[in-house]
Amino acid sequence: MREVAIIGVGMNKWGELWDKSLREIFIEAALSAIDDAGIDRIDSMYIGSMSSGLFTEQEHIASLLADYLGVAPIPSARVESACASGGLALRQGFIDIASGISDVVLVGGVEKMTDVTTGGATFALGTAADQEYECYHGVTFPGLYALIAKAHMHKYGTTREQLAMVAVKNHKNGSKNPLAQYPFEITIDDVLKSPLVADPLRLLDCSPITDGAAAIILCTVELAKKLKKDPIIKIIGSGHATDTIALHSRDDITWLSATEKAAKKAYEMAKKTPEDIDFAEVHDCFTIAEICVTEALGFFEKGKGGEAVEKGLTALNGKIPINPSGGLKSKGHPVGATGVAQVVEIVKQFREEAGERQIKNARIALTQNMGGTGGSALVHIFEKE
Amino acid sequence: MREVAIIGVGMNKWGELWDKSLREIFIEAALSAIDDAGIDRIDSMYIGSMSSGLFTEQEHIASLLADYLGVAPIPSARVESACASGGLALRQGFIDIASGISDVVLVGGVEKMTDVTTGGATFALGTAADQEYECYHGVTFPGLYALIAKAHMHKYGTTREQLAMVAVKNHKNGSKNPLAQYPFEITIDDVLKSPLVADPLRLLDCSPITDGAAAIILCTVELAKKLKKDPIIKIIGSGHATDTIALHSRDDITWLSATEKAAKKAYEMAKKTPEDIDFAEVHDCFTIAEICVTEALGFFEKGKGGEAVEKGLTALNGKIPINPSGGLKSKGHPVGATGVAQVVEIVKQFREEAGERQIKNARIALTQNMGGTGGSALVHIFEKE
Repeated sequence: MREVAIIGVGMNKWGELWDKSLREIFIEAALSAIDDAGIDRIDSMYIGSMSSGLFTEQEHIASLLADYLGVAPIPSARVESACASGGLALRQGFIDIASGISDVVLVGGVEKMTDVTTGGATFALGTAADQEYECYHGVTFPGLYALIAKAHMHKYGTTREQLAMVAVKNHKNGSKNPLAQYPFEITIDDVLKSPLVADPLRLLDCSPITDGAAAIILCTVELAKKLKKDPIIKIIGSGHATDTIALHSRDDITWLSATEKAAKKAYEMAKKTPEDIDFAEVHDCFTIAEICVTEALGFFEKGKGGEAVEKGLTALNGKIPINPSGGLKSKGHPVGATGVAQVVEIVKQFREEAGERQIKNARIALTQNMGGTGGSALVHIFEKE
Repeated sequence: MREVAIIGVGMNKWGELWDKSLREIFIEAALSAIDDAGIDRIDSMYIGSMSSGLFTEQEHIASLLADYLGVAPIPSARVESACASGGLALRQGFIDIASGISDVVLVGGVEKMTDVTTGGATFALGTAADQEYECYHGVTFPGLYALIAKAHMHKYGTTREQLAMVAVKNHKNGSKNPLAQYPFEITIDDVLKSPLVADPLRLLDCSPITDGAAAIILCTVELAKKLKKDPIIKIIGSGHATDTIALHSRDDITWLSATEKAAKKAYEMAKKTPEDIDFAEVHDCFTIAEICVTEALGFFEKGKGGEAVEKGLTALNGKIPINPSGGLKSKGHPVGATGVAQVVEIVKQFREEAGERQIKNARIALTQNMGGTGGSALVHIFEKE
């Protein structure tokens, strides 16, 4: 297998982009990544999108976007694993280069979630859960995470305030990210007084509905060196795992088994342990999710994720900063783009271009992106040479 | 890159399967392929599905199906390229093994197209075309192929009867395939008297709405030999290309440029020419499509595809048999499954298990699967050792 490097990244300003279509949103991010990489050649494309069909009534977007980007007839593939679609696109781009099929690959993610005509965004997001056994019986997607939160609080004593602290931390980081959808700070009190969505989760525990895209350019490490890229940023580990997408089939709904297993594979491939990771971008679609994820990744003991946030261990200046970009909570969550945007942040940090949210001396970082309530997970590990 | 072999294939009886759900349909085909391969291990899965979201209101199906098949937590990825989703799944499985990531991969395709609650199957199929510039203005998917047919007839003198002969041939082949949705013969007169759908295309020019699945098991050639598989069936060429998904942007709507380019890549990788191909399974979603495809693949000169059918060159006993399985027309077209089922037929023929539709002494075969009106195309070449 050939070694893979990242030589360009781009994303647009995320938010409710009422005057831009799916194709326009994607092209902005893709051109920005191509410009950043300084290349004039792409061999193939992988596009993560959760549900361009239900959100925008348009399938076949991999060809559509290759055409609008002016790179057709190159191979262009859309991949989907619900909210982990972006992470899956990254993995497929990584495998494509590792195999020797392509030398330069554009990995993109895009979702246009406003302007939904039929069913609405909440309905479309619910299709990440088991429709026949979950949503058709009335539970919403926030409702499923609320069940996880209740169970975690009951089993481990995680507090309502600790959940709020995840949102407060991520908004603090996001306030330093000009591309974030909600780049402002909030207080614990703001979270606790925000409208109840699904007990115990309140509005400010939930990531928003977002229009946005992100793109990165991958190539062989050999080519990155020939292009004199500095620093050389490598993907040294890739793990992908699945679990039941219905909560009722799991032994323990507080434990994200697919994330644990994907991480195990990524750590093995990278020959690293959780202790080696300098910072991570993880899937905080709801505040409880970040707490469960940091446990499943091995950063903290089972049940100790809430306490870790309270102690400041995951803050920008903490032991292991989590979501320096602002995470899904503050930066936004255009579902298919999220897993790709996580990598944009890794590269910005490694290049020391992260401005006020810069983490010092980071050399090893991790991304974790998951689908639904954790039914699929992608974990990648990156090294700055 | 490692060499890739096919060691197991399976599909279920296709049709309007009102009493079976998407997951049940897939599991039938997947278990049949696993049984056929005689293995007890799968490292990863790739699932082609065009629009599980619009057809069944369920995304995230790669994890769902891995779980129901009992193989979670292995990596499982859904890929989509409209009606070429199955061919794309095949290519991603091929790349996965070639790269060294996985040794044994299940490639599946599935679509449940009946029981559609919102919009209907025709609406969902239209999302393979450019919604903003085509479908929102009133054209249907058969309407787009009708434009291609009209242009081909005008430019090359292709006749209404020649279109009908494609359907007659494929139904004749399909009448010998017990798993086909419509396993019966039809006459030219039947086609010409069937209801007009979009002039000049009539009902019997169109592939049907189908529920169905197909699955194949890939592994390294090394492993296939260790398992003493006989014959050894290799994938020796893989090509993937894109084009505009909107017809109005093309120089010539009678020419399938993505198919031509994907074929060029596949021929190059396989070190073969069109003359080397003993038979092919191609994308006859409408009768005109088969005619255009056989030209773009280089089997016949530009504009001569209609004449070739009339002369019997594509019949089961012709110079180059096309769609011995019955094709999309007679076998059915559960869109995401089609590209995988094409491979099922290649393997049945190579193993000489094709019964009354057996082609003698075939050693090199090709599959061509395309999305929309040809905006994406996948071409694969297979060799029997």
